[in-house]
Amino acid sequence: MEVTQVLHMNGGSGETSYANNSLVQQKVICLTKGMREEAISSLYRSMLPRSLAVADLGCSSGPNTFLVISEAIKSVEKLCRELNHQSPEYQIYMNDLPGNDFNNIFKSLDSFKEKLCNEIIEAGHGIGSCFFNGVPGSFYGRIFPTKSLHFVHSSYSLMWLSKVPDGVENNKGNIYMASTSSLNVLKAYYEQYQKDFSLFLKCRAEEIVEGGRMVLTFLGRRSDDRSSEECCYIWELLAMALNDMVSKGIIKEEQMDTFNIPQYTPSPSEVKFEVQKEGSFSITSLEVTVVPWNAYDNGNAFDSECGFSKSLSNGGYNVTKCMRAVAEPLLVSHFGEAIIEEVFSRYQQILTERMSKEKTEFVNVTISMIRRA
Amino acid sequence: MEVTQVLHMNGGSGETSYANNSLVQQKVICLTKGMREEAISSLYRSMLPRSLAVADLGCSSGPNTFLVISEAIKSVEKLCRELNHQSPEYQIYMNDLPGNDFNNIFKSLDSFKEKLCNEIIEAGHGIGSCFFNGVPGSFYGRIFPTKSLHFVHSSYSLMWLSKVPDGVENNKGNIYMASTSSLNVLKAYYEQYQKDFSLFLKCRAEEIVEGGRMVLTFLGRRSDDRSSEECCYIWELLAMALNDMVSKGIIKEEQMDTFNIPQYTPSPSEVKFEVQKEGSFSITSLEVTVVPWNAYDNGNAFDSECGFSKSLSNGGYNVTKCMRAVAEPLLVSHFGEAIIEEVFSRYQQILTERMSKEKTEFVNVTISMIRRA
Repeated sequence: MEVTQVLHMNGGSGETSYANNSLVQQKVICLTKGMREEAISSLYRSMLPRSLAVADLGCSSGPNTFLVISEAIKSVEKLCRELNHQSPEYQIYMNDLPGNDFNNIFKSLDSFKEKLCNEIIEAGHGIGSCFFNGVPGSFYGRIFPTKSLHFVHSSYSLMWLSKVPDGVENNKGNIYMASTSSLNVLKAYYEQYQKDFSLFLKCRAEEIVEGGRMVLTFLGRRSDDRSSEECCYIWELLAMALNDMVSKGIIKEEQMDTFNIPQYTPSPSEVKFEVQKEGSFSITSLEVTVVPWNAYDNGNAFDSECGFSKSLSNGGYNVTKCMRAVAEPLLVSHFGEAIIEEVFSRYQQILTERMSKEKTEFVNVTISMIRRA
Repeated sequence: MEVTQVLHMNGGSGETSYANNSLVQQKVICLTKGMREEAISSLYRSMLPRSLAVADLGCSSGPNTFLVISEAIKSVEKLCRELNHQSPEYQIYMNDLPGNDFNNIFKSLDSFKEKLCNEIIEAGHGIGSCFFNGVPGSFYGRIFPTKSLHFVHSSYSLMWLSKVPDGVENNKGNIYMASTSSLNVLKAYYEQYQKDFSLFLKCRAEEIVEGGRMVLTFLGRRSDDRSSEECCYIWELLAMALNDMVSKGIIKEEQMDTFNIPQYTPSPSEVKFEVQKEGSFSITSLEVTVVPWNAYDNGNAFDSECGFSKSLSNGGYNVTKCMRAVAEPLLVSHFGEAIIEEVFSRYQQILTERMSKEKTEFVNVTISMIRRA
């Protein structure tokens, strides 16, 4: 499986699309707003660029795509008014793998621009010209010219590895690192993460100007244990659904044994270690946040803050849809279309049952950095 | 009808797609190769940029999309070897309206890059890094940052107007300027062209660096007569098909009377007049070329040069497919889906009959310019 060819969120705007099932990701973006505001404000104050180049890596397509961009522009426009400066021009780069639904983004661009302009004008500010670009390609390689970017953001994308690690052939019955995975499997996943993330940092170091800022959020974990439930449980439950289908003869055992999710959920110290080892960036902050699996769950302090009100009791249903929007293309590519409905129907049953008994949440690691001189 | 919302070539890669029916456009690109080579070579020699920003406006999606980009990179790499220079980085911007099939372009990007690299390496050259961007938006407005481009190209896009001209309500029975159009209709079309093209020049003048180059090819005409057959006949024959369907009661007369093609096919002197009036560019050359309606027709000197070998006798069939790939979205938006098959079946009959009796060709106007200091 070529991850760069296969991995993409479900396109379009239908029932199972990522666009309609990305509330978890939206909550995470909301939770990390403060770190981005600090980064872009101090960047603007220190550099005062006439043209500000902002990139969102792994932008996907849907309501979240423009959230960060819109927030960044608003922050800068507010600062410009405070400092009595003319607005800069904005160069906006939206990156994702070539299989992402860019058409969907581009078609909603006009209404996004209109909404943003209205909001900014209502706040009594002006707005500089915005130039939008779609940038197809893997961020585990160079995708921008040398020293061309001021601010780079990525949320919930960098836990995806460039490939399934080599040497995980004995991870049978599992589809990710799990409590029953051998040590060599955990090691292989970690080494692939190190390789990928250090390459990512090296590429961005070439593309970001000195003093430029980068804020990254990954799905991660707090624990030092790589197969900790806090990061692996959601995939273990999907593996349960698949294993049930193997035992019923619906999925072949060899197929199950050769399927592994190309993801790694790092701890804050693992992230910090790679950044320090690579050496081009200095860390300004490193934070951990959590978000419930069921993003519609209202029992959280930040819900009112982010303005979510919809409460749906069937958490299993919501989480299944969220995971389907993310993982369906990977599953289809490996197992074929035919089994998909049944996989997610079984997964939903399992999720519903477990979520009624246990506290289930995603752990997020966010890091804010400055490109060293 | 909002032209920017409706106008796009047929997407995808199916039977009626633009990707499969754009041989005329490919021939035109081939015919104008010399002018682009002169422009990009003299640009590179005079500026020696470390990072070369190239934009193709109205890039569409299909085999032609990468033709000009690939040719430009090859020319520069060849020059770099001759001058013993290191290759520049290439920033490639592919622009079209937001309805264009950018997903299709992005999915073929990897194979394009691979092919280009192989060709360049075979020629014994190296290649600088290439960074690709999709830029959705109308070129009748700013789409790039100030002074950010070195070379701008557009082929067979700028004859499309930003809108159907106001004041053509009395162009009944016609869908474009025609021999039976009133003078006010011809005037309205020309004025819309002047407005649009001068705005285009103004925007590009802000985006192109001093000494930067621009090469534009339009569908045009040689004659001073705006309703000359050489530019209007192809649409007159489509109007015939539509009028036949009005007389049969399949299309309502009001519908036919309110449909007009948002296009203008200028003469070289009209192009020259607008460029001189706007004042930011000096003209280095202005040429007229022709290409047969049936691009598979082998009776042309440039066929061997461009490497076309396929010869299909049914010219009417080919030209219908070409026109359908270009005009179907406009027709669907105005008349609905239901009539489309019949329109093009009738159009094909008419085209086949006329082409057997008359010499039919498209006239192209190409202009090469330098951004003044």
